[in-house]
Amino acid sequence: MRGNIKIVTIGGGSSYTPELIEGFIKRKDQLPIGEIWLVDIEEGKEKLEIVGNLAKRMIKAAGLDWKVHLTLDRRAALVDADFVSTQFRVGLLDARIKDERIPLSHGVIGQETNGAGGMLKAFRTIPVILDIVEDMKELCPQAWLVNFTNPSGMVTEAVIRYGKWDKVVGLCNVPIMCRKIAAGSLGTEEEDLFFRFGGLNHFHWHRVWNKDGEEKTAEVIEKVYATEGGLKKAMQGLKSSGVQNIPNISFLAGQIRNLGIIPCMYHRYYYITDDMLKEELESYAKGETRAELVKQTEAELFELYKDPELKVKPTQLEKRGGAFYSDAACELIASIYNDKKTHMVVSTRNNGAISDLPNDVVVEVSSIITAHGPVPISWGSFDPSSRGLLQLMKDMELTTIKAAVDGDYDAALQAFTLNPLVPSGKIAQTILDELLVAHKKHLPQFKNKIEALEAK
Amino acid sequence: MRGNIKIVTIGGGSSYTPELIEGFIKRKDQLPIGEIWLVDIEEGKEKLEIVGNLAKRMIKAAGLDWKVHLTLDRRAALVDADFVSTQFRVGLLDARIKDERIPLSHGVIGQETNGAGGMLKAFRTIPVILDIVEDMKELCPQAWLVNFTNPSGMVTEAVIRYGKWDKVVGLCNVPIMCRKIAAGSLGTEEEDLFFRFGGLNHFHWHRVWNKDGEEKTAEVIEKVYATEGGLKKAMQGLKSSGVQNIPNISFLAGQIRNLGIIPCMYHRYYYITDDMLKEELESYAKGETRAELVKQTEAELFELYKDPELKVKPTQLEKRGGAFYSDAACELIASIYNDKKTHMVVSTRNNGAISDLPNDVVVEVSSIITAHGPVPISWGSFDPSSRGLLQLMKDMELTTIKAAVDGDYDAALQAFTLNPLVPSGKIAQTILDELLVAHKKHLPQFKNKIEALEAK
Amino acid sequence: MRGNIKIVTIGGGSSYTPELIEGFIKRKDQLPIGEIWLVDIEEGKEKLEIVGNLAKRMIKAAGLDWKVHLTLDRRAALVDADFVSTQFRVGLLDARIKDERIPLSHGVIGQETNGAGGMLKAFRTIPVILDIVEDMKELCPQAWLVNFTNPSGMVTEAVIRYGKWDKVVGLCNVPIMCRKIAAGSLGTEEEDLFFRFGGLNHFHWHRVWNKDGEEKTAEVIEKVYATEGGLKKAMQGLKSSGVQNIPNISFLAGQIRNLGIIPCMYHRYYYITDDMLKEELESYAKGETRAELVKQTEAELFELYKDPELKVKPTQLEKRGGAFYSDAACELIASIYNDKKTHMVVSTRNNGAISDLPNDVVVEVSSIITAHGPVPISWGSFDPSSRGLLQLMKDMELTTIKAAVDGDYDAALQAFTLNPLVPSGKIAQTILDELLVAHKKHLPQFKNKIEALEAK
Amino acid sequence: MRGNIKIVTIGGGSSYTPELIEGFIKRKDQLPIGEIWLVDIEEGKEKLEIVGNLAKRMIKAAGLDWKVHLTLDRRAALVDADFVSTQFRVGLLDARIKDERIPLSHGVIGQETNGAGGMLKAFRTIPVILDIVEDMKELCPQAWLVNFTNPSGMVTEAVIRYGKWDKVVGLCNVPIMCRKIAAGSLGTEEEDLFFRFGGLNHFHWHRVWNKDGEEKTAEVIEKVYATEGGLKKAMQGLKSSGVQNIPNISFLAGQIRNLGIIPCMYHRYYYITDDMLKEELESYAKGETRAELVKQTEAELFELYKDPELKVKPTQLEKRGGAFYSDAACELIASIYNDKKTHMVVSTRNNGAISDLPNDVVVEVSSIITAHGPVPISWGSFDPSSRGLLQLMKDMELTTIKAAVDGDYDAALQAFTLNPLVPSGKIAQTILDELLVAHKKHLPQFKNKIEALEAK
Repeated sequence: MRGNIKIVTIGGGSSYTPELIEGFIKRKDQLPIGEIWLVDIEEGKEKLEIVGNLAKRMIKAAGLDWKVHLTLDRRAALVDADFVSTQFRVGLLDARIKDERIPLSHGVIGQETNGAGGMLKAFRTIPVILDIVEDMKELCPQAWLVNFTNPSGMVTEAVIRYGKWDKVVGLCNVPIMCRKIAAGSLGTEEEDLFFRFGGLNHFHWHRVWNKDGEEKTAEVIEKVYATEGGLKKAMQGLKSSGVQNIPNISFLAGQIRNLGIIPCMYHRYYYITDDMLKEELESYAKGETRAELVKQTEAELFELYKDPELKVKPTQLEKRGGAFYSDAACELIASIYNDKKTHMVVSTRNNGAISDLPNDVVVEVSSIITAHGPVPISWGSFDPSSRGLLQLMKDMELTTIKAAVDGDYDAALQAFTLNPLVPSGKIAQTILDELLVAHKKHLPQFKNKIEALEAK
Repeated sequence: MRGNIKIVTIGGGSSYTPELIEGFIKRKDQLPIGEIWLVDIEEGKEKLEIVGNLAKRMIKAAGLDWKVHLTLDRRAALVDADFVSTQFRVGLLDARIKDERIPLSHGVIGQETNGAGGMLKAFRTIPVILDIVEDMKELCPQAWLVNFTNPSGMVTEAVIRYGKWDKVVGLCNVPIMCRKIAAGSLGTEEEDLFFRFGGLNHFHWHRVWNKDGEEKTAEVIEKVYATEGGLKKAMQGLKSSGVQNIPNISFLAGQIRNLGIIPCMYHRYYYITDDMLKEELESYAKGETRAELVKQTEAELFELYKDPELKVKPTQLEKRGGAFYSDAACELIASIYNDKKTHMVVSTRNNGAISDLPNDVVVEVSSIITAHGPVPISWGSFDPSSRGLLQLMKDMELTTIKAAVDGDYDAALQAFTLNPLVPSGKIAQTILDELLVAHKKHLPQFKNKIEALEAK
Repeated sequence: MRGNIKIVTIGGGSSYTPELIEGFIKRKDQLPIGEIWLVDIEEGKEKLEIVGNLAKRMIKAAGLDWKVHLTLDRRAALVDADFVSTQFRVGLLDARIKDERIPLSHGVIGQETNGAGGMLKAFRTIPVILDIVEDMKELCPQAWLVNFTNPSGMVTEAVIRYGKWDKVVGLCNVPIMCRKIAAGSLGTEEEDLFFRFGGLNHFHWHRVWNKDGEEKTAEVIEKVYATEGGLKKAMQGLKSSGVQNIPNISFLAGQIRNLGIIPCMYHRYYYITDDMLKEELESYAKGETRAELVKQTEAELFELYKDPELKVKPTQLEKRGGAFYSDAACELIASIYNDKKTHMVVSTRNNGAISDLPNDVVVEVSSIITAHGPVPISWGSFDPSSRGLLQLMKDMELTTIKAAVDGDYDAALQAFTLNPLVPSGKIAQTILDELLVAHKKHLPQFKNKIEALEAK
Repeated sequence: MRGNIKIVTIGGGSSYTPELIEGFIKRKDQLPIGEIWLVDIEEGKEKLEIVGNLAKRMIKAAGLDWKVHLTLDRRAALVDADFVSTQFRVGLLDARIKDERIPLSHGVIGQETNGAGGMLKAFRTIPVILDIVEDMKELCPQAWLVNFTNPSGMVTEAVIRYGKWDKVVGLCNVPIMCRKIAAGSLGTEEEDLFFRFGGLNHFHWHRVWNKDGEEKTAEVIEKVYATEGGLKKAMQGLKSSGVQNIPNISFLAGQIRNLGIIPCMYHRYYYITDDMLKEELESYAKGETRAELVKQTEAELFELYKDPELKVKPTQLEKRGGAFYSDAACELIASIYNDKKTHMVVSTRNNGAISDLPNDVVVEVSSIITAHGPVPISWGSFDPSSRGLLQLMKDMELTTIKAAVDGDYDAALQAFTLNPLVPSGKIAQTILDELLVAHKKHLPQFKNKIEALEAK
């Protein structure tokens, strides 16, 4: 894999692509890229053209000779790839709108990553990613798969468990934001802190120490997470204003203090479900669910992207919400390529890092990124205040993935029942059924069940 | 402990006592009882008199010379006891009414065993049981503690973990009903089936095999648990109509099939929370929560008990809901005393029986009852469809118990947050606060916090 | 499986067969046997005739109409079998003589069950048992396999792990003797004691309680195992004098006291290796290794068996060493057939019974014998004084079995290296090589390696 | 701990001290040292003077103003220490000679780290280290304890488990040599390889990857460990010839290949015990056990150290055998002080890094050295080819430590029985007894037992 790296980005027509290209350009000295292939599907052709041409302009403006290919032929693109990154969205943002609005129409949080919406996204995405993996086995068996398609943890788990493909890393920008928030609250540089993250994608906790070896976890909790408005302020302080992907409500101070470790922003869905729901219902009523806002932002972004004079990533992209995401992917690729031993938080096989979960499941955990992939740092055990909830979420994920692979309706219903964001009972079944029918086109594995539901 | 057994029943004024006495009388040939001490507190004095006199009449009518002592002096009663059974209710039924109605007033299930109500009951009960254990260490260090005070699993865990008292067994009648339902649905005698139960109190699953070694679990699921109305019918079929302690709604068939193991009736609170809530809210509106119904039943029972001609357990007791409970206690005592190696389902230290939980926690599991206590039968591992939820519930229990022992408000809030029956967020905090204030008299360990809440 | 039970005994020409037949006769009221098939191989034909005719005379004398078939056609025998018991010895006693004498010729204990000799026996036996399992899948897929071919634990593990056959139980007479010794030393009936056994075949420990719930483990240790000559005396006290399968040397008292649990007789090979070796080297010098003595005893037994007047199991069989073995098999079969829930110590899947070993390995553990097979009773965790040694032995077993299945010489060498009875280094390699060559005929899976060794 | 670091070295009179001083001097820019206190006992006074004066000359020659204190008053030295390093030897080299020669006199390997000799060293050392820890709690509660007194793993475990002191790191030079050997065999720089080590002190395995992410473990095995003479050559290739602390015999190729991971040199005691024993018996016969050779080397070193013109570490020190040891200590101290996140292999609490061992035991494992101490990198699980043996060794260590702390003879005998390097039986007891009596002066905790042994 020396020289002339070939990178393939599936879902290349995404609005994120300029950040990805920017990330590669920033690392041009570390990454001798030969070709970048942006792959999309027929429905995404127009966007692919727009963003692909921007990518070409950016690379040219940077004085680089990397070849950029735009294609709808995934298999052609994959031939001899070194790195394959996945950022596609089956059903596009309209599917996400359904993921969020259908549950909310029943008074239930949708949550596109590990709520009802995220589970449907897993149902749509997992068959596609497994297809990609089959292609990779044939066309680029040495390549690394860098996944930032959500639900990132479940998708990564599916690739390893059912795709039997080990060269995969799942990425997310939430840990990056957590690091920035902690550093900001302590008035320190990130580099001067040592972090340990453990948990699952969008469901991890962390601890932090300073250069003198003092644990600063409790201090960060007090300053940010156990203070009314603290988290909101901290998030606004981040350079990217778009990180407000989720309503900016405060945790319950006492509960967070009792944890003793720092939750991630997404934990609010679990720790203050009722409060989050209220805010989401308001957005729902106004037609301003997160998916709807993102769709609007995207439309604006693509307008900008069309400008033939634009040769850099526009700052407006940061509003999109995925800040740092693509940069993380570039850093990961550079770390693998150069065996940099960087510390990153990634979704990877547990291998004992978290004693409370089986060794063979995927977790999101601080890892050392080597040329042979991520090596997790030991987290150890969680206290009962977080352990059981983590274990439940992992099993919800496993059940969701199984349902996605087998097209097993009962497993899907089980996963909905287990998910703490979905009230169990007939309401869970109703939401599941409506979502299945709404996404029929992208759920071939559930075809028979959906037809039976429609026939009712 | 040979001959002249001394049995002490704390909460002796309970309406259950006649069943307990009946259970002892039935086993008179196995249990050479010398004395039975019924202990209660000042507030329960009248009931103690009534039920104590009935007990005396029952024993006399059975031609036995057992001495029955009625007392408010617990320490006097405990001296040299062989078996201490606990069936007390701190705050009496009025406390339970609050446990159920306060959460319902916020649209949340109360659930007196492992919902918000049950957690409050744990807060009230655990300090008292730990006091009893301290007395036992001093006054009857050889005695066995047979607990059927709810939440039975948490109370038993507290006794072992914080009381450091190992000679304790927690009892519940739910497994007994499960066995009867399975046998009924298969048209078989219970004795011709082999059961394995595993889980926690009011949160266990079971499997069943017939005499030919065929597993009949799936058949029981189909006939009872995955059939609309199946469970209701099965429960009505039980001799005791009073087992309908919980609303008689059907599970979701697909979810139960996916489990592959048989849930207990209380699992409905978790598996069909929304449906259960609806029914409970109706009862709430009518002033007919379970606690209120029980209070009424109890009043009627005590009227009956007063009848000096009554010399046997009145059949109406079965409506009370705790059918088989006291009989289980008697059977347990007889099994320990006689080293009977009976198979019973009890709350006891896990010791590896359930691989998914730590060895040192209390579980409710099929056990062999020997003279040195229960020896659990290996359950093994659960599938993801039940594993994580079980682990969460155990950690919710551990957090609740810790809060109860330490009077730690943050831990209490954590436990409320973890409990799947309580929506997390401000609503959880509100319910917790109202419950704490409402039960102030019985929560000395939370005194400062409650006063602060009242001052607000 | 109701009525007309068909039992197939592979290795039917064994000298043990009369005990087996006696065991069935004793249980004639529990076991409606239709046919008994005694199967052997060409080389065992004469013995099969002799012992088979004795079996027929015994059954006739008992007034039973069971049909006894003697055959060399294993597949014919297996058709529609209900129970298949295996007591064959690949290579007959001459192979065992080599197993014991070759290691001793290098100053190393042979030990036919889990020493160097036993490992070779595993190499010879496992391919054959896996063949039998393949036949059973085809010819009698409902049958139970009752194995008492040594090394019983490894053979059972191979059947489950590689044969993917779950209806198998491994048996051994050592736990039975341990129970008798404990009862004898306490002056109690076995029935009045409660035992918990945990460990591996020929490598288990136990604890014991009396009817008053008092643990008597320490008392048994003092009386039998920590007393010079105590074990010898206890074993002589057993009805069968032949249990002295292993040299009768005393343990080190302090080491056994430190254990806190009761070892089995075979633990002496591990706990006092040097002393055992000295005694074995003396026997070796005199041509009186255990295998040689057994061969002589067997010859005498078959002389007796020929007597057409003999219609009962001759008492001399007890000298043979396998006392209680066949009776255990009969009791196991009766327990499965009648769902007796008997407590027996068997080799079965761990399933969490011993927390220190993986759930999926085979252990020898107290179990409840039901119609669907053994259900282990939880042992829990071992202390460091026994835990690590148990874990090593299990991994030695797993490595041995893998070598046996794959014909993997390096794995075989690893297993020899791991085994505490074999000094590691060139000596281990030498002994392994000599044993492989000596058993060439029965080790087809190692053919290439053996030929290479011979060519050197 | 900013500026003016105070370092205390207990056993300061050791011949290693010049390497330690050299290590500090090399890192003068990272470590603003104020004072170095070299502490020894009365018997080591002369050596302390000699080596202490050399240390002063070395520091002066380096143009540094660090104050060097030589003292016999340990408590005075410890006041406000920042780092305490321990390199003392209770009973000096004469004790080691006994540790090695007494077992060899019975034909058994002594092995000063985890054989019979090492266990006795643990018995002598653990009470002293626990005393030091008690002093530290009082006099320098913020200090880090850097232990390289052997048996380093057991001493570190004792400090954590019984001393309840968490700020401790155990060090050893063996992993450093392993790294150098691997790099040498691959013709690569160490920095270009990624290593993962897991196991126990002197009983660990490792894997290695190159900068392209290819695992080179099998290649290193072939080139060094599975080749006759390969390891000897590799060790001679190390700059320091003194690493031949252990006889330089080759492993068995097939056994090492089957492992699939790279053993350490000390594994030869376990994997080729018999061959190692033969070589040691030859050295024993010639009065040239390792201890005797070291004693001679030390005498020569101290002659050199006396030379007032000597102002640097003499190269002859490398023959001593502990090469890299002290340098590792300096690097560790610099890493903690500067939060360097260096990767080092240290003895620290497992915390899940090795799934096959409890979380709370000490393991030797690749770790990231931060200002708050070592954070282990996940190793995961071992295969059966190494797992059980590792588990046995850990339990042998735990039993040894318990015996050392409690002065429990039966536990000591158990530990000897468990140790694979000691043949079990009367010979183990004899060796133990002779060693106890020989070391009487340094084993106060075994006083009664030793007097009883002497009286026999």
